[in-house]
Amino acid sequence: MNRLQLVDQIKKKSSYLCVGLDTDIEKIPKHLLKADDPVFEFNKQIIDSTRDFCVAYKLNTAFYESLGAKGWESLRKTSEYIPKDCFTIADAKRGDIGNTSSLYARAFFKNMNFDSVTVAPYMGEDSVRPFLEFEGKWVILLIHTSNKGSDDFQTLETRDGKFLYEEVISASQLWATPDQMMYVVGATHEEKFSSIRMQAPDHFFLVPGVGAQGGDLEKVSKAGMNDQCGLLVNSSRAIIYASSGENFADAARKEAQTVQLEMKKLLNEQLR
Amino acid sequence: MNRLQLVDQIKKKSSYLCVGLDTDIEKIPKHLLKADDPVFEFNKQIIDSTRDFCVAYKLNTAFYESLGAKGWESLRKTSEYIPKDCFTIADAKRGDIGNTSSLYARAFFKNMNFDSVTVAPYMGEDSVRPFLEFEGKWVILLIHTSNKGSDDFQTLETRDGKFLYEEVISASQLWATPDQMMYVVGATHEEKFSSIRMQAPDHFFLVPGVGAQGGDLEKVSKAGMNDQCGLLVNSSRAIIYASSGENFADAARKEAQTVQLEMKKLLNEQLR
Repeated sequence: MNRLQLVDQIKKKSSYLCVGLDTDIEKIPKHLLKADDPVFEFNKQIIDSTRDFCVAYKLNTAFYESLGAKGWESLRKTSEYIPKDCFTIADAKRGDIGNTSSLYARAFFKNMNFDSVTVAPYMGEDSVRPFLEFEGKWVILLIHTSNKGSDDFQTLETRDGKFLYEEVISASQLWATPDQMMYVVGATHEEKFSSIRMQAPDHFFLVPGVGAQGGDLEKVSKAGMNDQCGLLVNSSRAIIYASSGENFADAARKEAQTVQLEMKKLLNEQLR
Repeated sequence: MNRLQLVDQIKKKSSYLCVGLDTDIEKIPKHLLKADDPVFEFNKQIIDSTRDFCVAYKLNTAFYESLGAKGWESLRKTSEYIPKDCFTIADAKRGDIGNTSSLYARAFFKNMNFDSVTVAPYMGEDSVRPFLEFEGKWVILLIHTSNKGSDDFQTLETRDGKFLYEEVISASQLWATPDQMMYVVGATHEEKFSSIRMQAPDHFFLVPGVGAQGGDLEKVSKAGMNDQCGLLVNSSRAIIYASSGENFADAARKEAQTVQLEMKKLLNEQLR
């Protein structure tokens, strides 16, 4: 999915919600455990019930890898099941020397059909570039993450008086256009959203950390939106585990709709 | 495998060689493609023929992930096949928010029985700590990698006049002892080995980049060795693809032995 198509979907659905399929086999409703592939079954029902209210799905690969080859298969099946009008994110936080990153890119872009992969910047340009060589695919680069440890290194000040994450933004803008690259900016850093938006006016930001981690949707949206919206705000646990009973899919739908309605309001306010 | 056991193996084998099982199905000898699991078959024969001359095996997960669920299964089977007297490294370069890193740790330390996982530091302490909670397991933290892009961010100077990678060393020394943590230091930065060794006198360094990438075993060993050796020097392509014919395992054995003999000499010189 390209940028234009993504912006279209956001307008059409009045939503910039990304649903995080952090599917933990220990947390899904018990009645699903009878299914052949409980994780896929859970994902399928969550996707069916939330697809009207979100524009993207993010699959954190850790949840699937922790189940071995079977989990990897659930990941692949889910990536294929997601409707084509939704943007797909392999939240893999990969990054390795060039020839190795190419293999990761192949895993997520060719063997599976993800639109994007999250990539860690520590190893520099040649660890990111192989992901950019796939036509129509995206790199979502970690900039300032939502976790506590995000201040350990990301906000170290360099000799030029910039934060490390600002150096990552500057450098990476030479590697790819906003049509191929997005940035991960955690909702827990709402005070930094305006300055990051100034430094990267056109990039989409993938925003984790709203909800369970304490980020505030309204503040983040007001500070971070650009004239094409420019945000994908992720919610995982609050939506997919809205209920642990047999009504989990309905509960997820309601929760997704609640977020979408708030987003609609914010889009109307910000983009008028 | 703990530190004492690793040092014992190094002395016993007079080797600090780590063989990198970067097994690419497009590069293995054609006659193996008839096997049920060609990647595992290749690894098995390489392990059988090199185990006398190395103390560790490193499996870069990208090569396995690029084959999907089947590759993940080859990874698991290989990790089980490696003899218990060899240290095992899942070269996964993972790192995510705490609860997610726990799942990666479970994947590599519980579902498979790797001794260690390589971890990227960008997300900070809470992305690394979950890996340290597994008794007897190791984190191998990326410090200064061997690729060209390693200078994009890792050698940015901070306001304190340190390189970013030096900040990562300082911070991470508060997270774990040298009994639980090793550092990745690329052989291509031989000029920095002495100062990194001064900053981290007791840590083991996992050293990629000798051979195909241009690093020099002798220089790196002289600058980087401590009184327990403190080095695991990786070689992948030069050993496992020493021949593309049916004699590939023999050729790998000879190549591994050549490196081991050089290491024996260096150990004798440095540790006398």
